[in-house]
Amino acid sequence: MALRVGVVGGGQLARMMIAPAVELGIELSVLAEQPDMSAHLAASAVGDYRDTDTVLAFARGVDVVTFDHEHVPQPVLHALVDAGIAVHPGPDALLYAQDKLRMRARLDELGMPQPDWAAVSDVAGLQAFIDDHGGRAVVKTPRGGYDGKGVRVVRAAAEAEDWFAALAEDAHGGQLLVEELVEFRRELSQQVARRPSGEVRAYPVVETVQRDGVCAEVIAPAPHVNDRLVATAAQVGVGIAEGVGVTGMLAVELFETTDDRILVNELAMRPHNSGHWSQDGAVTGQFEQHLRAVLDLPLGDASPRRPWSVMVNILGGPAEGAIEDCFAAVMAAHPDAKIHTYGKTPRPGRKVGHVNVVGDDLDDVAYDAHAAASFFEG
Amino acid sequence: MALRVGVVGGGQLARMMIAPAVELGIELSVLAEQPDMSAHLAASAVGDYRDTDTVLAFARGVDVVTFDHEHVPQPVLHALVDAGIAVHPGPDALLYAQDKLRMRARLDELGMPQPDWAAVSDVAGLQAFIDDHGGRAVVKTPRGGYDGKGVRVVRAAAEAEDWFAALAEDAHGGQLLVEELVEFRRELSQQVARRPSGEVRAYPVVETVQRDGVCAEVIAPAPHVNDRLVATAAQVGVGIAEGVGVTGMLAVELFETTDDRILVNELAMRPHNSGHWSQDGAVTGQFEQHLRAVLDLPLGDASPRRPWSVMVNILGGPAEGAIEDCFAAVMAAHPDAKIHTYGKTPRPGRKVGHVNVVGDDLDDVAYDAHAAASFFEG
Repeated sequence: MALRVGVVGGGQLARMMIAPAVELGIELSVLAEQPDMSAHLAASAVGDYRDTDTVLAFARGVDVVTFDHEHVPQPVLHALVDAGIAVHPGPDALLYAQDKLRMRARLDELGMPQPDWAAVSDVAGLQAFIDDHGGRAVVKTPRGGYDGKGVRVVRAAAEAEDWFAALAEDAHGGQLLVEELVEFRRELSQQVARRPSGEVRAYPVVETVQRDGVCAEVIAPAPHVNDRLVATAAQVGVGIAEGVGVTGMLAVELFETTDDRILVNELAMRPHNSGHWSQDGAVTGQFEQHLRAVLDLPLGDASPRRPWSVMVNILGGPAEGAIEDCFAAVMAAHPDAKIHTYGKTPRPGRKVGHVNVVGDDLDDVAYDAHAAASFFEG
Repeated sequence: MALRVGVVGGGQLARMMIAPAVELGIELSVLAEQPDMSAHLAASAVGDYRDTDTVLAFARGVDVVTFDHEHVPQPVLHALVDAGIAVHPGPDALLYAQDKLRMRARLDELGMPQPDWAAVSDVAGLQAFIDDHGGRAVVKTPRGGYDGKGVRVVRAAAEAEDWFAALAEDAHGGQLLVEELVEFRRELSQQVARRPSGEVRAYPVVETVQRDGVCAEVIAPAPHVNDRLVATAAQVGVGIAEGVGVTGMLAVELFETTDDRILVNELAMRPHNSGHWSQDGAVTGQFEQHLRAVLDLPLGDASPRRPWSVMVNILGGPAEGAIEDCFAAVMAAHPDAKIHTYGKTPRPGRKVGHVNVVGDDLDDVAYDAHAAASFFEG
């Protein structure tokens, strides 16, 4: 009996599940938002993931439902569970990836290290938080943000007045999340896979480099780490996965502060950009691992194949023509580069692919990955 | 402009091109013999590869045509070329993979080391060859053999009488190939990728272990080799690829004789079972390399990621149930094993998948690969 996984969402994360699914012999189907998305090769249905009937009809043909993104509304998720369909991650876990205020409150309950934060309902409340935290803070919309959207660094509460106005118009009312602006040395990401039956595997903690709020580069494992940091990051990742009940891949974005603490920045309950290195650099890549986890199969070895892996995103793509037009030049110059593209039309700032390079010397690996990716830049 | 590769034949070799095609962003389509074959995920057409109109219609939608097998008849291949379609490998190269007598004659012209051989038309001719070669020989049908079929070790010409009778009934007449029975220490395989524009890359020579005429295990690179053997194997592989004009992947099956010579046994002009280790064990796997080669893109690094890779075929599969039913047990016991399945119904002796294990210690790697594969045995 073939194993059938249904992915809601047709973006590049669904697309990158196709390769390990084909190799393992897992039947992957995708509910895509539009016909011509990244994962169109496995798209068995096109429809609105906010429509319960659409998602239920899609789910009836598979053994387990999982996701390319965290935006499926809670009522739709609960309708799947009520219909007896296996959903991983489940609605009670996904809630904390969907709502950053709930996430902060839950992580406090779990005793996880995080920035100071508060829920604020008005300008006065926000200004009080700013005044208490050195005259600046990070304001976030609790829902719907990604890649730097819905995040604003402010020095005065008035800078978030438009968001308060939007909240007031929202029938549900609501609050904004405000966090201290953390003095961080760098950003890290800890990925963990967890099965419904409880098995957990942690990937090595990695360093992520952001540019304009978007992940630009990942170094795996994170260089210049001591044993304490590695152990703390893994404990935080595993603690959140277990505490929140995540099934599938979890990414915990972390700040490494200038005073050597680890603080949780964001959560993602799906394969994540910070884990793309693992496709070529780990024994079990995150996309295979996610499939194994949501099917409740034993997890694969998450250790690196080689000492260093560097992933560089292809952002924007060539100014003219298609990304494939760059292949001849980049492949000739970098025979060791692993090129991954998402079938997207190049557009400034858009993630259209990434390059992985794996090897023994970090300087060489990083140079090669950047040089290879630069061939795709406009 | 997307790169479009069309594969004639829907078997596991076409299936295993899907994963690298998706990652690179190459549009793969497959002309499958039947609807439910291994490569059904990419099957855009179902039809008879012996029918010129069927193959031509399929080919008009792609940039280059390549193959899952070598059985497309020469007139069909030439019709493609005449229609201006890029075909790799081309008919003039494929001829030598289709006809073992032509292959032997061409390799003699190229000065390649091979067993003594002859074309024989009757029992008397065969008996003379046997008498000249120690009272035994290997008889082969020039066309259509695979996995040990069409190959017979004989001590008397009468043992091949039925094949001569069949030849006599064949409207084309014809001859059998007879070869000396080589005293070999072991079998090796040398893979080479070659682009139409001439670039060539050789993979490390590997050891192949056959069971009942079928490839059972591959060790990459071949252990216990000296520099001379490695260099000779690569020279033979590159020499044949260039001499015959192969485009795409070439596998040269070799005998390592008990007196330390390398002799060419068979040729395959496509990805080959002896290269499945490269999916997980080489920087560029053979399926990605084949796609790059037939598209005339620069070839990828063919070197191993780790010192040792062992591939063990899953032959037959579980006696009852589906191959997926074995996943939980094998994955729990072998988190480092890379499992590849072909979407085929288990049947005694049938290749239904393979397991790759990669690592630093050959004994450990080989043990793990065999132990993991054994979970799938009936």
